[in-house]
Formats: sequence, structure tokens, C-alpha cells
Amino acid sequence: MANRVQEFTEFRKKMNDRILSVDNRVVKRFFGVDTLTYEPGALDTKTKEMLGLASSMVLRCDDCVSYHIMQCRELGVTLEEFFDIFSVALVVGGSIVIPHLRRAVAFLDELKNDPVQDSR
Amino acid sequence: MANRVQEFTEFRKKMNDRILSVDNRVVKRFFGVDTLTYEPGALDTKTKEMLGLASSMVLRCDDCVSYHIMQCRELGVTLEEFFDIFSVALVVGGSIVIPHLRRAVAFLDELKNDPVQDSR
Amino acid sequence: MANRVQEFTEFRKKMNDRILSVDNRVVKRFFGVDTLTYEPGALDTKTKEMLGLASSMVLRCDDCVSYHIMQCRELGVTLEEFFDIFSVALVVGGSIVIPHLRRAVAFLDELKNDPVQDSR
Amino acid sequence: MANRVQEFTEFRKKMNDRILSVDNRVVKRFFGVDTLTYEPGALDTKTKEMLGLASSMVLRCDDCVSYHIMQCRELGVTLEEFFDIFSVALVVGGSIVIPHLRRAVAFLDELKNDPVQDSR
Amino acid sequence: MANRVQEFTEFRKKMNDRILSVDNRVVKRFFGVDTLTYEPGALDTKTKEMLGLASSMVLRCDDCVSYHIMQCRELGVTLEEFFDIFSVALVVGGSIVIPHLRRAVAFLDELKNDPVQDSR
Amino acid sequence: MANRVQEFTEFRKKMNDRILSVDNRVVKRFFGVDTLTYEPGALDTKTKEMLGLASSMVLRCDDCVSYHIMQCRELGVTLEEFFDIFSVALVVGGSIVIPHLRRAVAFLDELKNDPVQDSR
Repeated sequence: MANRVQEFTEFRKKMNDRILSVDNRVVKRFFGVDTLTYEPGALDTKTKEMLGLASSMVLRCDDCVSYHIMQCRELGVTLEEFFDIFSVALVVGGSIVIPHLRRAVAFLDELKNDPVQDSR
Repeated sequence: MANRVQEFTEFRKKMNDRILSVDNRVVKRFFGVDTLTYEPGALDTKTKEMLGLASSMVLRCDDCVSYHIMQCRELGVTLEEFFDIFSVALVVGGSIVIPHLRRAVAFLDELKNDPVQDSR
Repeated sequence: MANRVQEFTEFRKKMNDRILSVDNRVVKRFFGVDTLTYEPGALDTKTKEMLGLASSMVLRCDDCVSYHIMQCRELGVTLEEFFDIFSVALVVGGSIVIPHLRRAVAFLDELKNDPVQDSR
Repeated sequence: MANRVQEFTEFRKKMNDRILSVDNRVVKRFFGVDTLTYEPGALDTKTKEMLGLASSMVLRCDDCVSYHIMQCRELGVTLEEFFDIFSVALVVGGSIVIPHLRRAVAFLDELKNDPVQDSR
Repeated sequence: MANRVQEFTEFRKKMNDRILSVDNRVVKRFFGVDTLTYEPGALDTKTKEMLGLASSMVLRCDDCVSYHIMQCRELGVTLEEFFDIFSVALVVGGSIVIPHLRRAVAFLDELKNDPVQDSR
Repeated sequence: MANRVQEFTEFRKKMNDRILSVDNRVVKRFFGVDTLTYEPGALDTKTKEMLGLASSMVLRCDDCVSYHIMQCRELGVTLEEFFDIFSVALVVGGSIVIPHLRRAVAFLDELKNDPVQDSR
């Protein structure tokens, strides 16, 4: 299952490089704004990443959820805190969130047995 | 504009009472779980309400946004913190969030000139 | 509040006529398929309208919800059955459905004091 | 293809157990409400499961669709009835539902050659 | 009905000014990228605005639809072309798009009797 | 990677045949309207397919995106034009579109080394 973490990270990096190799100003700037979003401001990065995780989960984007889980974990979010985030997403987004919750928890469990890679 | 806050609060309370007056176990329990969600756990209520606000905004639910803004404001979320939450929702959810951001900021400005009512 | 039912019905009829007055084959055929959808087949019209209501509610389309409530009511759906439909939509779709549930119940209550108009 | 049914069922059971092993009251109660939703009330379980299936399909949640297909099939929903449910979901949700419809029909065909497992 | 166009334009301008008066870098840059998106590139502005209109309609954002209709109209999109755009959005997004289509056509008809204002 | 294009095309064709083999009038007519949508009208097929692609991307339907990419490519859409379409979808739909953008670009790159199959 370490493979899922590795595959996700490699495909993500490879395709981001490919996308940014094409000279499209809007796409490039959007990626820049996306990175800027999670830098510390009035709220710290940990809180912002938690907001990104909850938002990704209610929008049911598995890859976004995986990414924010990796970031949150590096920033020290505990299992109990993860489940509080999941609980908000579950109640706000309803039972259609459950399959994404299953994959999120499976991904989180995989990370425990794996060196985490970052770089969005 | 104090009217918008008042109208929202009154309609919300009136209809919640009406809904709970009908004897449907699932609906009643769901409302109970919804209330429980924001009670302090591994994360405090303020953080949970911020998660609820970001989630509501990316899902583009104006009434949910208004409600969580009221809760966050009572819990001391500052204007700068609100805009950090909005910025995450905007980047995650895209430009279709902008009309909801406009109404959210208008609602927030109205609250300043108004005694806030709670009770979801 | 009879006004809300009347306004909804009149605007709906007026704009449907306007839309169909423009000679666009795809739009016209889509409207035809939409009407055909709720005619009795393996499932009767009442069941199909209930499916349409639940689907509209989880997709959070107030006008669609209002329309299917009117159809369901004419077909004899009771208050208890409406709340069972609402409960499925609420649990599947989550707390963001609640504001739409409030408006749905308000609309349903208005219909009791009003002659119902049909024609989608 | 019996594998897809089996894999889905096993992963679902394994992860539900894992999720409920974590002591989060909100998540646990939500799972309880979710189960309660499909118990007979004013509407019978079969009708409720059909509502759950249509709702899952317009929200485009493949795992939710698979689950409700399994439940509906055990409750005697026929191929013609399934296609009536699919037709409502297709017209309400549009052509983006088509890929999910393809997978739903493929899953349904697989179930015919397979002993069905339940337990959400 | 000229009022609806005017109200929309004024509220939009007022709140954009208010939002940009708060010093949040992410929000400001996002607004900048949003503006940049519709500038001519490999595709001309008219085509990009049509893409924005179809995207807004399937995402069911009335204000976004109104805005892109105003832009498209200034760029010479004809009634027949508008209906081709609407037809794609309707078929892709399904019958839940219909209420938004009604409001879009009503808005378009209002614009005919009104001087159009721009500035997003 | 040619396999992904081939697998997608074969599964799509096989399941469309299976779906249309069941005698459901609504589903059949919907498929007919879907085909009709992209025939030339006031807008040509290329523009309509680009609208379909942008709409599919903001709704985050990978299979729909793959299909419209194949159609657009046959109609002569260039890499620079594809990225303009992607840029609109990205800004309108937000960062949750990024994982779908990655898969879209990967699919597009695969098509270059592959004879393209059509038939929706």
C-alpha cells in the first residue's frame, strides 16, 4: 500500500511538471495562487490545510483529500483531529462522503508505514 | 440590512421548529448529530466552525455560510481570519464561489451593526 | 404565501413558453424527454416523482423541489411519506440540504391553503 | 467481474470496521442514522433504497450506487424498474451521469453471476 | 426588469470594491487571474466567454451566468448562439439546469431593453 | 498507455450497446438528444465540443473529459487551445479541478501515440 502513496506522489509531480511546461499564463498563475493559499497569514498553515482537507472532502475529490492529508500529517495533525475534520465533512456533505472517508482513512493508515513525500 | 440577519434568523428558527414538530426519527436524529458536530472534541468549536464555514462556501450554500459566519463571529474570528477562510474556499472552489463570497462579506458587514442571534 | 406558489407557477409557465418559442431542436427535445420521464413504466408516476423529488433535493435545486412537491402532492403523497423522502435526501446529501428542506416544508405548507396548479 | 463485487464488499466492510474502531461520537452516530434511514417507515425499505439509488446516481457516487443496487436487487427490484430509476437520474442529472450509468449496469450484470453480500 | 440588470451590476461592483479593500493577497491575486482568464490567447475572448457561460450554467451559478451573458452579448453572441450554448449546458447538466435556463433567458430578454454595464 | 485509450473506448462502446439493448424509451431518447447536441447549428461542432469539454471538466467527470478531448482533437483543437479551455475550467471550478486536469493532459499525451477511435 506504500505503493499507493508513491504512485500518487509520482504521478502528481510528473503531471504538474508537464502542465507547467506548457506556456499558459492563466494555468501557471493559478498554480502560483494555489501554493500561496496555504502560506501562513492570519491563520497558520496547519489550520489552512485543515480547511483545505474539509473542503476537498465535501467536494469529494480523492486526490485533493490525499494531498491535504499528507500536508496535515506533516504539520502534526493527530488521528483524533483528523476524525474531527472528517466528522464535519461527513455531516455537512452527507453519506455520499462515506466512500471518500473510507479511502481517506486507508490512505492515512498507509502513510504510517511510509516515508511521506511532499511537494504538491 | 439588519433585516436580512433578522429575517434569516427568524425563518430558520420557525422552520426548524416546524420540521422537528413532525415525528420523523431520521430527521430528528440528523439534527441532533448536526448539533453534536460542533461541540469541542480533539478540535475546539472555533476550529470546527471554521471548517463548517469553508465547507459551506465551497458547496455554495448561502444560508449555511451565513449561519457559520454568525457562529464564527461570536467565537472571535477576526476579519483577517475570515478572509483567510474565504481565500481557501475561493481557490479550492473557483470563481463560482465569488457570488457567494460577495453575499458572505455583505452579511458579515451587516452583523457589525446588529445584535447577533444564535440558535441554529 | 399563496403568492409564492402562484409566482413560481406563472414564471415557470411564462419562461417555458418563451424558451420553446425559440427554434432550438436540442432544447425542445430535451423538454420532451423530461416530460416522458415521469410517465408510467415499470414504476408508476408517483414513485418516479418521488425519485425526482429526492434527486432534486440532494442536488439542492429549490425550483425543482417545489415542482416535484406539487406533483407528488397531487398524486397523494402524505406528509409522513414526504418526510421519509426528505430524510433520505438529508442523510445522503448532508446538512447543506437543511436550508432547502426548510424551504420545501414551507412550500408544502403553503400548498395546503392553495389550489395547486400543474403544468411543468 | 465477480471480483469487483467481492472487492467492493470486502473493502467496504474492512474500512467501516476500521472507521468505527476510532472513538469519534459524531462519525459513529452518523453511521447509525444512515442505517436507520432505510428502515421501513411511511415508505417501505424498497422505495427508500430506490430513492437512495437515484440520489446516489445524480450525485455521481459509484460506490453508493453499487451499494444501493445490491440492496435494491435483494429487495426484488427488476431490470425494468432499475432502468426506470436510471432514466430519472439520467434526465435530472444529465449526460455526465452516463459514465456512472455504464458502471452501474456493468455492476448489475456482474451481480447476476454472483452470490450477493450485504451489510453496508 | 431593467432593475434586475442594474441591481446585479451595482451589487457586484460595490462588493468587489469592498472585497478588494481588505488586504488579502490570495483573494486579490485570484481576482487578477480571473480577469486574465478571458483575455485573448489561442482562443479569442468571445469563445472563452462562451466557455465560461456553459461552465457557469452546468454549475448552476445564476450570478455567473448573468455576468457571462452580459459579456457574450457585448461580444456579439446571437440569440441562436446563446441557445446552442444553453443546449449543451442543458444536456450535460440535466433538468436541474432548467430553472437556471429560465432565469438566464429572462435576464437576456431584459438586457435588450437596457444599456449594458460591464466591469465584472 | 495506448491501453487506457483503448480500454476507455471499448468499455464505452460495449456498455452503450448493453444499455441501448434494454427497452427503455427515456434512456434511448436521452442518448439520441445527447448525440444531436453536438451537430452543427448556430455554433459549429468544434465550438460545441469545446463547450462540452469545459462543462465536463468543471463537473469533474473524467470519462466525459476523455471523450470530448478525443472529439476536439479530431476536429483540430491544438495544444494551446486545449490549455485555454483547461484554464477557463480551472479558474471557474477551482483547485479541485487540478487532479482532473492532470489526467486530461495525460490522456491527451497518450492520444498522440495512438490511432484515435471515435463513436461515443
